[in-house]
Amino acid sequence: MLRTHTCGELNKGNLGQTVTLAGWMDAKRNHGGVIFLNLRDIYGVTQMVVKPESPLFKVAEELKSEYVLQITGKVTPRPGANANANMPTGEIEVEAEEIKVLNVSLPLPFGLSEHAGVLEETRLKYRFLDLRMPRMAKNLVLRSRLSQVVRNYLYGLNFNEVETPMLTRSTPEGARDFVVPSRNNPGEFYALPQSPQQFKQVLMMSGMDRYFQLARNFRDEELRSDRQPEHTQIDLEMSFVDEQDIARVVEGMMKAVFAHVGAEISSPFPEMEYSDVMLRYGSDKPDLRYSLEIKDCSEIFKNSGFKVFSETLSTGGVVRAIKGEKGAAFSRGDMDKLTELVKKHGAKGLVWLRFKEGKWESPTLKFIGETEQTALKGLLSVNDGDAVFIAADKAPAAAACLGALRNELITRLKPEPVKKWAFLWVRHFPLLEKDAETGNWTFTHNPFTAPLPEEEGKLDTDPGNVRSCQYDLVLNGVELGSGSVRNHTRALQERIFALMGYDKEQVQSRFGMIVNAMDYGAPPHGGIGIGYDRLIGIICGTDSIRDVIAFPKTTSGACLMSDAPAKLDEKQLKELHLKITE
Amino acid sequence: MLRTHTCGELNKGNLGQTVTLAGWMDAKRNHGGVIFLNLRDIYGVTQMVVKPESPLFKVAEELKSEYVLQITGKVTPRPGANANANMPTGEIEVEAEEIKVLNVSLPLPFGLSEHAGVLEETRLKYRFLDLRMPRMAKNLVLRSRLSQVVRNYLYGLNFNEVETPMLTRSTPEGARDFVVPSRNNPGEFYALPQSPQQFKQVLMMSGMDRYFQLARNFRDEELRSDRQPEHTQIDLEMSFVDEQDIARVVEGMMKAVFAHVGAEISSPFPEMEYSDVMLRYGSDKPDLRYSLEIKDCSEIFKNSGFKVFSETLSTGGVVRAIKGEKGAAFSRGDMDKLTELVKKHGAKGLVWLRFKEGKWESPTLKFIGETEQTALKGLLSVNDGDAVFIAADKAPAAAACLGALRNELITRLKPEPVKKWAFLWVRHFPLLEKDAETGNWTFTHNPFTAPLPEEEGKLDTDPGNVRSCQYDLVLNGVELGSGSVRNHTRALQERIFALMGYDKEQVQSRFGMIVNAMDYGAPPHGGIGIGYDRLIGIICGTDSIRDVIAFPKTTSGACLMSDAPAKLDEKQLKELHLKITE
Repeated sequence: MLRTHTCGELNKGNLGQTVTLAGWMDAKRNHGGVIFLNLRDIYGVTQMVVKPESPLFKVAEELKSEYVLQITGKVTPRPGANANANMPTGEIEVEAEEIKVLNVSLPLPFGLSEHAGVLEETRLKYRFLDLRMPRMAKNLVLRSRLSQVVRNYLYGLNFNEVETPMLTRSTPEGARDFVVPSRNNPGEFYALPQSPQQFKQVLMMSGMDRYFQLARNFRDEELRSDRQPEHTQIDLEMSFVDEQDIARVVEGMMKAVFAHVGAEISSPFPEMEYSDVMLRYGSDKPDLRYSLEIKDCSEIFKNSGFKVFSETLSTGGVVRAIKGEKGAAFSRGDMDKLTELVKKHGAKGLVWLRFKEGKWESPTLKFIGETEQTALKGLLSVNDGDAVFIAADKAPAAAACLGALRNELITRLKPEPVKKWAFLWVRHFPLLEKDAETGNWTFTHNPFTAPLPEEEGKLDTDPGNVRSCQYDLVLNGVELGSGSVRNHTRALQERIFALMGYDKEQVQSRFGMIVNAMDYGAPPHGGIGIGYDRLIGIICGTDSIRDVIAFPKTTSGACLMSDAPAKLDEKQLKELHLKITE
Repeated sequence: MLRTHTCGELNKGNLGQTVTLAGWMDAKRNHGGVIFLNLRDIYGVTQMVVKPESPLFKVAEELKSEYVLQITGKVTPRPGANANANMPTGEIEVEAEEIKVLNVSLPLPFGLSEHAGVLEETRLKYRFLDLRMPRMAKNLVLRSRLSQVVRNYLYGLNFNEVETPMLTRSTPEGARDFVVPSRNNPGEFYALPQSPQQFKQVLMMSGMDRYFQLARNFRDEELRSDRQPEHTQIDLEMSFVDEQDIARVVEGMMKAVFAHVGAEISSPFPEMEYSDVMLRYGSDKPDLRYSLEIKDCSEIFKNSGFKVFSETLSTGGVVRAIKGEKGAAFSRGDMDKLTELVKKHGAKGLVWLRFKEGKWESPTLKFIGETEQTALKGLLSVNDGDAVFIAADKAPAAAACLGALRNELITRLKPEPVKKWAFLWVRHFPLLEKDAETGNWTFTHNPFTAPLPEEEGKLDTDPGNVRSCQYDLVLNGVELGSGSVRNHTRALQERIFALMGYDKEQVQSRFGMIVNAMDYGAPPHGGIGIGYDRLIGIICGTDSIRDVIAFPKTTSGACLMSDAPAKLDEKQLKELHLKITE
C-alpha cells in the first residue's frame, strides 16, 4: 500500500503519528515562507506543511496543481487560528518529512471548482478531470451506494438478480433497436435489449418467482437531454401478485432509497385513475408537489352566450379552467406568451381573466355573464391577484393544453410546494390506442399488459375503452417507472395480438419465445421497470442525467473521450459480411 | 397477493390455519381414493390432500402436471406414517377446500427430475422448463446470492460500483469485437466492450480510488464449452496499491464467497513465479489439488548414452520427468495413448518406465544406465507400482507436453486431492512475447501492464526477458482471473507501445483516451478481472458454464428460445446504411 491513511481520515486522534498519504495536489499557499499544501483524494483533503528550514522546501516549491504525490510526515495540531472545525481533517496538519512525486500533470484545461462556464463538450472530452469535481464524484458514489440499498432491500424480499442476455433478437415494435452483426451467422443480427421484458416474463414461467436486475437498456432514438442510448433500469418481476402487491414492493424500495439520503417519505403513495389524472392535471405525469388543479366548468358555461364555449360544448367538447395564484401580475405580453404556448400544444386559443381589486379584467370579459363569473370564482376559489385560464376543446386537447399551461404556471409563479417528494401511481391506462400511421389498434405501453379482468368482455365490442393493468410511477412530474400485470394465458395474449392485427405466424415470429412458454403453465405475474438514471438525477438535484452517468454520450451519440463511434477497417467489415451504403 | 404462504414454509407451527398456496402441480397420487397432490414453487413442495367425499375430488382428478394452481385449505398434521422429517414441509399437509386453476399446461417435452438423456438443444429450446429443474434453479439463486456477497464485501472496503459504457470504441487488439452500427453516424460503429479495462483505468485517473463492477463482457470468438459470446466478470481497480494489496482484497473476497457455501479457505494464497510454475507443473494454470510435480533431471542425464537425451541437452534442451503414482498398472496400450497425447502437444516422443516388484520395465530401459535409474528413483521417490515419464526437448516444449501429461495422469490415476479448493497466484508473467504472425513484440496479457520496476532497464536491451506486474488467479486448474499493476506514466506506456511497433499516431488513435488521461496526474493503480461464470460453475460443480447462465447461447451463438440472431428487414438495414455481402 502506498499510503497508511486516506486524505479524509486523520484527526486529533492521530496526533504524533507518522503517516503516509497519497493524492493530488489541490492547492498550495506560501504564507510567510511556510508552504501549505492541500493533498486531495476522493475521501477528503489534508493540509501538509513544509517549513522554510526543511530540506523539502525546494521540492515543494516546484510542485504544481494535480501532481500526484506521496507524502510522509508527522501529524501535528494546527495552530489555533488555522484550525477549521468545519472540515473533518481541519484540526490537524501533516509536517512533511518525505515527498515523492508519483506523477506530474499538465496544466488543466479548466479548474476543478464548480464548472460554471465550462462547455459541456470540454467537460466530456476531459471527463477524467470533470469527475474529480467533488459534486460529480459525490453523484457517482451516491449512485453506487443507492444501488446497494436497492439490492439489499430486494434480496430481503426473496428477489434474485438474474442477468438476462444483451445479445437478443430484434423486435420491430416500439423504439429502434441497436443491432449487432453476427460474424458466425452472416447476414444475421443480434439486437441489444430495449428492456429485459420478454426474458423476465420467461423467468416467471421458469418458476423464478421474484426477479430483479439493474439492467442496461438500449434505444437507438434521437437523443434529448434526459435520454442516453444506454440507460439503467431497476427491473423487477413477481409471480402470483396483483397490482397492489407490486406497488407495496416499489414503495418500500423508494422509502429505503430516500431514507439513505435522509428523507422520510410516506406510503402507500397516492394513486389515481389515468382518466382522472388527465382531467385534473392534463398530464399523465403531473408534478404533485404543487396543488394547482384543472377544473371542469362545462356545467357553468352550458348556457353561455360565448360562441367559443357554446359551440365546443354542443359538439361534445369541454370547457376547463385553471387558476394561477398571483397570476394577475402577468402583463398582456405574458398572457400572449402563455397563449402561444397552449397553441403549440394544439389549442385554438386561450381565454384568460385577471381578478384585481375585486374586479375581473379580460379582453373577453364581455362574453362571460355575471352569474358565470361568480360561479367561476367559487369553483376555483379565486382571490384578489389571481388569474384564471380557460380552454374550450375536445377533452384530450383541453387536457394537453391546460397540462402544459399548468407546468408553465408552476415555472413562472413558483407556488409553494406542498411536499418535497411527490410520488404518484397513475393506474389503468387504456389497453389499446389507434396507431396514428396505420389506423390499427396498438398497445399503449407494452404488448404483454393484461386488460382489467372485469373489462375483458369489452375487448370484442369496445376495445378502445378497455382499461388495463398498466401503471406508471411518477415522481415530481417525472415518469420514473412503468409496469403492469401481464397476460399469462396464451389465449388472452393471442386475442390481444389479433386486435393489433397480427396473424398467428407474425405472433410466432415476433413473440414466439413468450407465447410458447405460455403453453406450459405460465403463472400470473407482473412487474415494473424504474429508470435508475432519472431516479438518481432527481435525488442529486440535477436536470441532466449526464451528471449521474460516469461516461455519457453527447446528443449525437458520441463519446468525446474515446471518439466512439468510429469507422471499422475493411478487414473487420469483410469478416462481418457488411458493406456501407450511402 | 394470490397466496398467503409459499410452498416451502408451512410446518407444524401453522397447524389449524387456513392458508392459500399457489404453484405448479408437481405430482399426484391416488391412494385408496385419497388424492395427494404436490404443489411446487421455487421455495419447496407442499402436499395437498383431497378426500374422496370432497366436492373438489372431480376437479382434482382432472389436474395435470405443471398446471398452475391456487389452493386454499386447512393445515393438518400428516398421519404418523406419512410424515417426512427430511422435508421442511414434511410434517404437515393442506386439506384442500378450494382449487383454482390459474393456468393449464401442455404435456412437457421432458421430465423435470434430473435431465440425464435430454439433449442440450432441447433443454435450451425449452429453457423455461429446464430452469424449473431444482438443480438449475439452485444454481441461479446461488449465483445471485454470491453476487451480493461480493458486492457487500467490496462496499465494506470502500469500493464503488460504476457502470461503464456498453457502446464503446473498437480496438483491433486482442479478440474480435462485436460491433454496433450507429444510425446517427452512418458508416461508423460502436463496439461492445471486451472488458471495461480502459474505462476503469480512466476512473482511477478520475480519482475514483476504488472501483468495481459486475461487468458484462463480449468477445466474438469461436465458442467452446466454457465460452459464451457474453460473460460476466468481477472487475475491480484500485489506486495507490501494489500487487500484494490487490491480492489481499481478492483473497478476502474469495473467503467471503466460499464461506457463504460453507467452505473455509485459508489465505494468503500460495504464489509462484510464472517461470517456476511452468517448470514444476508445465502449465500457467496448474491444478494444485494434486501434488504431482515435474522434476528436472538434466543433471542426472548429463552424461547419458541415450542419444535422445544427450543431443537434447547438448543443444540447450532439458530432460524432465513426472511420476505417475500407481501408473505401473498402465498397459502398453495406455502408454501408447499417453505418447500420442504428448505428441499432440508438440513432443517428439515420450520415454516411460514402470517400476514393478522392485524392477524397472521400459522399452528404452537399455538406454538408461543403472546410476541414472537409481538417481531417477530417488529424485521422484518412486515406489513399487509407479510409472515415470520423461520428456527431452527445449524447455517450453517439455513443459507443455509434461503439463498436458500431468492433467491426463490426474484424470486416469485419480490421485487423492490434497485440498478441495486450490487457489494459486501465478506472478510475473513476461511483459512481452513475439507475435507469431508479425514477429513483432506484443503484450502477453494486457498492453497496459507495467514491467517490474527493477527490470525496466532491460526494456531496451532484452525486452523478451522483462518480467511484468501481471498475475493470474488460478483455482483448481482453471484460470479464474487476470490482472496487473498498470503503467501510470505516459512516458513508460509509450515506450512499451513503441516496442510493440506502434508510432505516436497509432497510439493516439487506438489508445488516445487512456494516454491523454495519463497527462493529467494519473495515480499508480492496478486491478483484476475475475470470471464470474467460471467461479460459479466451479462452486456449483458443473463443467459447463451454460448451467450457471440463465439464457446461454449454443456453440454457434444462437439462442434457441428466441431464435437470435435473425435477419433484419430491408428498412432497418437501409436506416443503418448497411448492405449484406456474400
